[in-house]
Amino acid sequence: MFDLNSYLHNVRTQVDETLQHYLGGPSPATHISRAMAYSVMAGGKRLRPVLCIAAAETVGGSRETVLPPACALELIHTYSLIHDDLPAMDDDQKRRGKPTCHVQFDEATAILAGDALLTLAFEILATAGSRCASEDQKRWLSVIAQVASAAGFTGMIEGQMRDMTLEGTVISETELESLHRLKTGRMIEVSVGSGAILSGASKPQQQALHAYAKHIGLAFQVADDILNVKGDPQRLGKAIGTDRIRGKNTYPSLRGLSGAETLAGQLVNNALETLDTFGNNADPLRAIAHYVIERNR
Amino acid sequence: MFDLNSYLHNVRTQVDETLQHYLGGPSPATHISRAMAYSVMAGGKRLRPVLCIAAAETVGGSRETVLPPACALELIHTYSLIHDDLPAMDDDQKRRGKPTCHVQFDEATAILAGDALLTLAFEILATAGSRCASEDQKRWLSVIAQVASAAGFTGMIEGQMRDMTLEGTVISETELESLHRLKTGRMIEVSVGSGAILSGASKPQQQALHAYAKHIGLAFQVADDILNVKGDPQRLGKAIGTDRIRGKNTYPSLRGLSGAETLAGQLVNNALETLDTFGNNADPLRAIAHYVIERNR
Repeated sequence: MFDLNSYLHNVRTQVDETLQHYLGGPSPATHISRAMAYSVMAGGKRLRPVLCIAAAETVGGSRETVLPPACALELIHTYSLIHDDLPAMDDDQKRRGKPTCHVQFDEATAILAGDALLTLAFEILATAGSRCASEDQKRWLSVIAQVASAAGFTGMIEGQMRDMTLEGTVISETELESLHRLKTGRMIEVSVGSGAILSGASKPQQQALHAYAKHIGLAFQVADDILNVKGDPQRLGKAIGTDRIRGKNTYPSLRGLSGAETLAGQLVNNALETLDTFGNNADPLRAIAHYVIERNR
Repeated sequence: MFDLNSYLHNVRTQVDETLQHYLGGPSPATHISRAMAYSVMAGGKRLRPVLCIAAAETVGGSRETVLPPACALELIHTYSLIHDDLPAMDDDQKRRGKPTCHVQFDEATAILAGDALLTLAFEILATAGSRCASEDQKRWLSVIAQVASAAGFTGMIEGQMRDMTLEGTVISETELESLHRLKTGRMIEVSVGSGAILSGASKPQQQALHAYAKHIGLAFQVADDILNVKGDPQRLGKAIGTDRIRGKNTYPSLRGLSGAETLAGQLVNNALETLDTFGNNADPLRAIAHYVIERNR
């Protein structure tokens, strides 16, 4: 019987150690690296690294190979949170139960810390790629391009832009799905995809895992919307009810709470089906699919 | 006789066409891409692309190969200007003779446009690398890592951090040199270095060009400080005298104006000496060394 809790604990410990190493150890030397480490080491589910590693292991890859991209994905995620929390954006005071980066330091430092985390992610990816066997280097270049595309102005950044401009406007569920796919979905897809590609997954394996990632990416967002209605602020480390106050479009606002819960369950079932061709190696991905909508309940 | 003006015109035209292509053509489709294009296409000297291309041509490389990195370097430069101009940082209203990005759009858009330009730079680099011959892919990965390192928290970002925190504090010339090397020097070094490496420069060639870049990188900053004292605001497209008002450490503040001018001339001579082993192919780099301190006079 697969034990997700010990798997998550194990992966997170390894990811956190590697992240801390990249960020200059337990006592970073400069103001900017302390701000970077403050936000990265503030906790978080490490969902993107976990997905990257679990996807690699599903196709028989090694954890060591994908630890650098797993960490790079978490750095990009953290940068996006720091910038989204800024006064000019969502103006959030708390994140992961602690003051946000611009509250703890200042706005200029938070902007630069975000910039630096994004930049460091690409340095880590390219450095790991330059050290691998020459026949694998094309894969690394392709993964770097895919990560940049998912994070960039036709991916995550466009999602954040739409999220802000659509506040207070009622949109259709199709538009909401498209927004979420940009804002969080593309990065979740590339987390799974990079783990698979760098582990030498075949095209059919890549396609199956891509479908898995699309389903759980959306399920994750639906669950996030639900948590903003009925989650426990203590466990979440941030306030609830904020979506409604801001006039955000959410699945509960479009479908009602129980409609949103039904959808989340369907998406998880869809995700599980895509894993049918894999054996026990895919058990972590299966357990993560359930976890995505059950976390913090 | 080498004609720098027509060389610069020629390179800039090619770089601008390529930049516009990367940014979605003459009419970008989204709000965020319009903001990105607004700042990138606002003009500027394109010094980093010119250096990258001239370095490639010095060692017999082709312009086509290094156009993508040349453009990527300009995108990173523009991102750094957009973020430096933000209210929380230098709070500048004008750049390249036009309203800064956050003035023309808004702060949130400017933050995201900067993020997107930085991300796009890495997408361009990795995509170009993934399409090249497999024996060259290691070079591309190494260049991506070097660009990220130069732009990151031990390079340009640390420079910007120090620039802000040291405002109003008198520092030594050694500290000022170190600040500038971080803030602008490392990116100028990697502009020259990436052009050279991707064109197959030998180690001694790389070393000579690296020394060239260090000298002109500093000369450029000294000249910039001088222009802030006695430049023509019309031609510069930004206000002068701002360094003194802000209490910035500059070469004129440490050495006096004529002392700073003497230093700039020495640095250009040092740069020219490093090119002694190259033939006529290095004429663009030679002319650029003079241009760096003579621009806008």
